[in-house]
Amino acid sequence: MIITLKKNASKHDVDKLIHKFEGMDLQVTMIQGDNYNVFGLVGDTSIVDEKSVMANPIVYNVQRVAQPYKLANRMFHPEDTIVDVNGIKIGGKKIVMIAGPCSVEGEEQICRIAKEVKAAGADMLRGGAYKPRTSPYAFQGMGTAGIMAMVKARQETKLPIVSELMSAEHLDEFVENVDIIQIGARNMQNFDLLKAVGKTKKPILLKRGMSATIQEWIMAAEYIMSEGNPNVIFCERGIRTFETYTRNTLDLSVVPIIKERTHLPIIIDPSHAAGDYKLIESLSLAAIAAGADGLIIEVHDDPENAWSDGAQSLKPKRYAKLVKKGKAIAKVVGREL
Amino acid sequence: MIITLKKNASKHDVDKLIHKFEGMDLQVTMIQGDNYNVFGLVGDTSIVDEKSVMANPIVYNVQRVAQPYKLANRMFHPEDTIVDVNGIKIGGKKIVMIAGPCSVEGEEQICRIAKEVKAAGADMLRGGAYKPRTSPYAFQGMGTAGIMAMVKARQETKLPIVSELMSAEHLDEFVENVDIIQIGARNMQNFDLLKAVGKTKKPILLKRGMSATIQEWIMAAEYIMSEGNPNVIFCERGIRTFETYTRNTLDLSVVPIIKERTHLPIIIDPSHAAGDYKLIESLSLAAIAAGADGLIIEVHDDPENAWSDGAQSLKPKRYAKLVKKGKAIAKVVGREL
Amino acid sequence: MIITLKKNASKHDVDKLIHKFEGMDLQVTMIQGDNYNVFGLVGDTSIVDEKSVMANPIVYNVQRVAQPYKLANRMFHPEDTIVDVNGIKIGGKKIVMIAGPCSVEGEEQICRIAKEVKAAGADMLRGGAYKPRTSPYAFQGMGTAGIMAMVKARQETKLPIVSELMSAEHLDEFVENVDIIQIGARNMQNFDLLKAVGKTKKPILLKRGMSATIQEWIMAAEYIMSEGNPNVIFCERGIRTFETYTRNTLDLSVVPIIKERTHLPIIIDPSHAAGDYKLIESLSLAAIAAGADGLIIEVHDDPENAWSDGAQSLKPKRYAKLVKKGKAIAKVVGREL
Amino acid sequence: MIITLKKNASKHDVDKLIHKFEGMDLQVTMIQGDNYNVFGLVGDTSIVDEKSVMANPIVYNVQRVAQPYKLANRMFHPEDTIVDVNGIKIGGKKIVMIAGPCSVEGEEQICRIAKEVKAAGADMLRGGAYKPRTSPYAFQGMGTAGIMAMVKARQETKLPIVSELMSAEHLDEFVENVDIIQIGARNMQNFDLLKAVGKTKKPILLKRGMSATIQEWIMAAEYIMSEGNPNVIFCERGIRTFETYTRNTLDLSVVPIIKERTHLPIIIDPSHAAGDYKLIESLSLAAIAAGADGLIIEVHDDPENAWSDGAQSLKPKRYAKLVKKGKAIAKVVGREL
Repeated sequence: MIITLKKNASKHDVDKLIHKFEGMDLQVTMIQGDNYNVFGLVGDTSIVDEKSVMANPIVYNVQRVAQPYKLANRMFHPEDTIVDVNGIKIGGKKIVMIAGPCSVEGEEQICRIAKEVKAAGADMLRGGAYKPRTSPYAFQGMGTAGIMAMVKARQETKLPIVSELMSAEHLDEFVENVDIIQIGARNMQNFDLLKAVGKTKKPILLKRGMSATIQEWIMAAEYIMSEGNPNVIFCERGIRTFETYTRNTLDLSVVPIIKERTHLPIIIDPSHAAGDYKLIESLSLAAIAAGADGLIIEVHDDPENAWSDGAQSLKPKRYAKLVKKGKAIAKVVGREL
Repeated sequence: MIITLKKNASKHDVDKLIHKFEGMDLQVTMIQGDNYNVFGLVGDTSIVDEKSVMANPIVYNVQRVAQPYKLANRMFHPEDTIVDVNGIKIGGKKIVMIAGPCSVEGEEQICRIAKEVKAAGADMLRGGAYKPRTSPYAFQGMGTAGIMAMVKARQETKLPIVSELMSAEHLDEFVENVDIIQIGARNMQNFDLLKAVGKTKKPILLKRGMSATIQEWIMAAEYIMSEGNPNVIFCERGIRTFETYTRNTLDLSVVPIIKERTHLPIIIDPSHAAGDYKLIESLSLAAIAAGADGLIIEVHDDPENAWSDGAQSLKPKRYAKLVKKGKAIAKVVGREL
Repeated sequence: MIITLKKNASKHDVDKLIHKFEGMDLQVTMIQGDNYNVFGLVGDTSIVDEKSVMANPIVYNVQRVAQPYKLANRMFHPEDTIVDVNGIKIGGKKIVMIAGPCSVEGEEQICRIAKEVKAAGADMLRGGAYKPRTSPYAFQGMGTAGIMAMVKARQETKLPIVSELMSAEHLDEFVENVDIIQIGARNMQNFDLLKAVGKTKKPILLKRGMSATIQEWIMAAEYIMSEGNPNVIFCERGIRTFETYTRNTLDLSVVPIIKERTHLPIIIDPSHAAGDYKLIESLSLAAIAAGADGLIIEVHDDPENAWSDGAQSLKPKRYAKLVKKGKAIAKVVGREL
Repeated sequence: MIITLKKNASKHDVDKLIHKFEGMDLQVTMIQGDNYNVFGLVGDTSIVDEKSVMANPIVYNVQRVAQPYKLANRMFHPEDTIVDVNGIKIGGKKIVMIAGPCSVEGEEQICRIAKEVKAAGADMLRGGAYKPRTSPYAFQGMGTAGIMAMVKARQETKLPIVSELMSAEHLDEFVENVDIIQIGARNMQNFDLLKAVGKTKKPILLKRGMSATIQEWIMAAEYIMSEGNPNVIFCERGIRTFETYTRNTLDLSVVPIIKERTHLPIIIDPSHAAGDYKLIESLSLAAIAAGADGLIIEVHDDPENAWSDGAQSLKPKRYAKLVKKGKAIAKVVGREL
C-alpha cells in the first residue's frame, strides 16, 4: 500500500502515523518527493482500511498495490479451476452451451424446449422459476412448481439444470434439485445470499452486477469462496452504459482479464446483454473467439408468446445454426464445443 | 402503448396482431406513416409485456406512454405523502437531519456520538449494525449488539434511529427496535427483501441503486407499496459514472423529478455520493436549495480511527456549522430545519 | 413522430397545435387514451424540432419513429457500400488489416515498422503525425514531417496510409498525401471538420466518440455524406464506462447494429479500447467473429521506447500470430483476411 | 510517480529500468514488498510517459502522484483568479448571471430578449450564432449575422456578450466582437481550437465535455493557459450517464473540487444539464448554494417557437423569480448576486 502525504505535514503528525502502522506489524519505507512524501507499507495490508487512512488530514492519497482477493487470485493458485457439473466440466477444453427459456411456463413447455435445445447441441438447460422483475405487476415466476418442472425436464433429457436463486429462504430447494445455482446481476452484492451459497458445495453461476467493476465482481466470488465453496463460475451479461440501442453493453474484455487475474471459468450471456435476438449470433461467436468457457443463451420456440424476454430469445432452429458456427470458431482457438 | 410496425408487414400478420390485442380488451387505433405503420393501444396496458411484443418479427419498436407505477404515481395521488417517524414528519415543511457514524462501534461510541449530533442539530441518528462491505475480510458490523447499542442511544437522546437491513432474516429485530429501516443501494432490486419490508408498516428509507434509473427506483418503491406499506422515503446517494475523483456522482435533479412524478418524500445522502468529507457541506446546502426533504450525513468524532468510511465523515463541530448554514438556506426556499 | 399530450390539455390548445402541424404539411391522426391523448404525425418530420414541441406546456412526451438519418440509412440504400482505397476494398469479403505505430517517430522508424507489419500480413499502414494528447506538455506529433515519412513508407511498401486529421487547416496536406483520413473520437462532433472532409472524396475513417450513442455516430457520418462524400468507414474504439481496468469498454454489438441500420463498413480498433497489449488478440478475434470489416491495431517493434501508447502496442511477431488466427476465424464466418 | 514491478522481475531487467530513469535525471527509491517491488521516482516526472513505462513487461502498475497540470494548479497559485469581462468580475464575491436564448434568431429577437433578461437581473447576454447540432439538417445558426445582432443587443443594453466559437476560422470575428468566447462541450478536446483561443487574451468559457473527467477538463484549461491566456472560466453542463429522464446529469461536486484543485472560477449551466425548464430553478439554487461563481441559463420569451432548445428555456418572468431567490441564497453563502 502506497500512502502519499501532503507536503506541509508536520514531523509530529507523520511520526504518529508511522507509529500507528508499525503497531499493525507493517514495515514502513518513506520516499521524499518534491511536493509530496510517500510511504510504502509492506506486510499484510488487507487489514488496513483505506478510507480511514484517507480521513487523516495529512494524507493526500492512498493506493493499494496488492489485489484485495486471495482465494480467487491466480497469483496464489496458478492452475485453472475446472468446475464439474454432473460430469460436465466448465473451464476445460470443452466450451459449455447452456440454453433454455427465460421463464419456466409449465412442465410441458420446459420439457419440450429442453428436447429442442438438446437436439440443437446444448449441454445444459436454463430456466427461471423465481424471476427478478422490475415491476411487481409482472409475472414473478412459477416458484417451486417451476423448479419441479425443470427436474422433470432433466429426467427426460439428462441435461443438468441451471436456475436463479433470489433468496436464501429457498436455498434447500435449490441444493436438492438444481445443478448450478445462478446468482443474478441484481444480487451480485447481496452479501448475505453470497455467504449462504458459499456454505454449500454447489456450482455457483455468478452474474456480473449491472455496474460492477471487475474487482467488485471478483470480490463477490471471494465472498462465496471464503465460506468454503470453490465452485464459482463467472458470467458476464453486459454492463449499463449511456447506449440505449442495446439493453446493456457486453464487455468481452473481461474474458482475458478474468483469466489473467483469477483461476476461475467465465461464461457469457449475450441474451441479457443485447436484449435483441438479432444480435445474439454475432456476440456469441465473438465470445467464443475471445476465449469464453461457455455461453448461456435464451431459447424459446414461441418467442412472441413467451411470458418474459421474448425479444431476446432465439428459436431452436436459429440456435442450432449458432452452435454449428460456434463449433468451427472453437476449433480455431483450440477448444471444442 | 405505441407499437411501430415494419413497413413490409403483411396484412395477415398485422390482422393477427390486432386480433391478439383485442383479445386482451385493448382498443387498437392505427396510423399509416410513410415508412412505418403505428398502432396505438388504449386500455390497461400494464398487462402487456413489451419484450414479447418486440419478439414479433413485424414489430419495429414499442413505446410505453403511461408510467408503469400506480401507487407511487402523483397522477393518482396528487397530495404529498408525509411519513411520520415517532412524531417527526418527513416530507412536510421541516427538513429532517439524520446523522451518525457509518458503523456502530460500541454502545459508548454510539451514545457519545448521538449526543454530539443531537447537540449539533440532528433530528435522528443513523448507524450501521449490519454492513454491506465489498470485501469479506472487512468488518461486517456488530449485528444485534449494534442494534441494541443504538436502542440505548435512542433512550439517552430520544433521537429516532435508522439502520440498514440486509436480509429478511433480521426483519423482526428491525421492526421491533428500529424506527426507519434502510434498504441499501446494493439491495434496491433485492425484490424478496422489498416484499418483506412491504409487509410491515415501518418507514422505509429506499436508497437508489448505484446504476438505477429513476423509473427503476420508483418501481422498487412500488414493490414495497404494493405489499401494503405506504411509508417509503427515497434517498439519493449518488450514481456510478466514469468520474473517479468522487466515489459517486450526486444527482440532485432527482429532487424535483421525484416530487413531480411521485407524492413521496426524498432525502439526500451526500456522504456516500462524495466519499470525501471536504465536499459534504457544499453538496448538503445544494440539496436543501434544490428542495430535498432531509439529509443523512455521516458524522464521527474520530474519523481517523473510524472502523469504516472515515474519509467521508464530518466531525461534529463541522456538522454543527453545516446545520447552521442549512437553516438559513431552508428559510429562503420556504422550509424549516 | 408520436406526440403525447397531457390529459388536461384544453381543446383550444390542442386545436392550435394541430393547426401548427398542418401548416407544416404534416398529416395529424389522434388516439384517445385513458390518461393521455396521442398524436401521430405523418409526412417529412425531419423538419420538426422535438425540443420546441416539448416546450409546449400541453405536451407530455415526443417520440421520433423514423430514424433522423437518410443517406446512411440502409432502408433507403439496401446494398452494402464498399469503400475503395487504392484498390483495396473495405466492406467486401476481405477483412482489411491496418497496423502501425501510434506515432510516427521518424522516417526510418515508420519505414521499418511498415515492412514488418506488411510481412506480418497488414494491408494498410497507420501512423499519427498530428496527435491529440490530453496534456499540452506531451509529444504533439511530428506534423508535416510525419506525413512525409508515411508517404515514404508507402513508396517502399505499397501499403496505403491512414492518419488522423485534427484541423481543417491541414486538409489539403491530407487530401494530397494520405489514403484514408481518420477523424478521431474527440472530433466526432467537430461539425466544421466533418463538413470540411465531406467536401472531399477521400475515404474517411470515423471513430466513435468516447460517449457517443450509435445514433449520434451515424449522424456524424450523415454530416460527411450530406456534403457529398459517400466514403465513410465507421471505427469503434471503445466507450467510456465506470470500469477502470480497461481504458475503454469495447462495444462489439455495434457491428451487427451498424450493418442493420446503415450500408457502410465498420472496422474495430481494439488497441485504444483495451489500452493493454495483452487483451488485443482476444478482442481482435472476437471482432472478426462478430462480423467486422477490418481491424486497426497499434504495432511497434520497441513498445517500451515508443513515444506514445507503448502499453497497448503489439510487437510485430505477436501481430503476425494474431493475423494467422484471424484468417482461420474469418473463414468460419465466410470472409477472407 | 510510483511504479510497481512484478515479483518475478530479474535483477538485470530491474537494473536496466533504474538506469533508464536515472538517465532522465530522476531519483529512484525502491521499496521491497512481499509480492511486489515498488519504485518511487522523484523529480520532474511530467516527462515520463506512463503508457511507455507500462509497456515494459516487468512493470505491473504505474501511478502518478503529482497532478499533471501546473498553470491551473492551486498548489502553485494559491490565490483565486478573477476574470474581468468589461468590468464585470467572474470569480469574486458577485455571482454572475448570464442569460439569453439558445440561438440568435434575428436582431429584433435578441435585442428584445436582452432587454428582458437585463430587467430580470442578468449581467451578461448569451446567444448562439454558430450552433453545434447533432443533425446536418437542423438549423446551424445565423453565423456572422447572429454575431452582429448580438453586438447590437450589447449596444442597446450594455450587457457583455457570450457566444460559442466552433472553428478557429472565425476566431478574428469573435475576438473583435464577443466578450467571452465559449468552447462547447463537444470541442473540449479540440486541441487545435484550444491552442488558437490560448493565443488571445479573451476570457474563455470552457464547457466540460460530455464524458470528460475533471482532470481532463483541467488539462483542457492548461492547454489554453500554456499558450498564454490565463482567463479561463470553467462551465459544468452535465455529464452523460445511463439516466434518460434528464438530458445529462449535473455534477455539482465539481464546484468544491475545481475550487480546491485550481484557482479558476467555475459557473454552472443547468439548462443543458437538465434539458427541461421545470428543473432549472431547483438546480440553479443548488448551484449557488454549492458555491458556483455564476449561472448561464437559457431564456426565451416564446419557447414553443424557439428555433432550438425550447424545452429547456425559461420565460423571462420565471427567470426573474429565480434571480430573486438566488439573491437570497447567495447572501447565506456569503456572496452577492
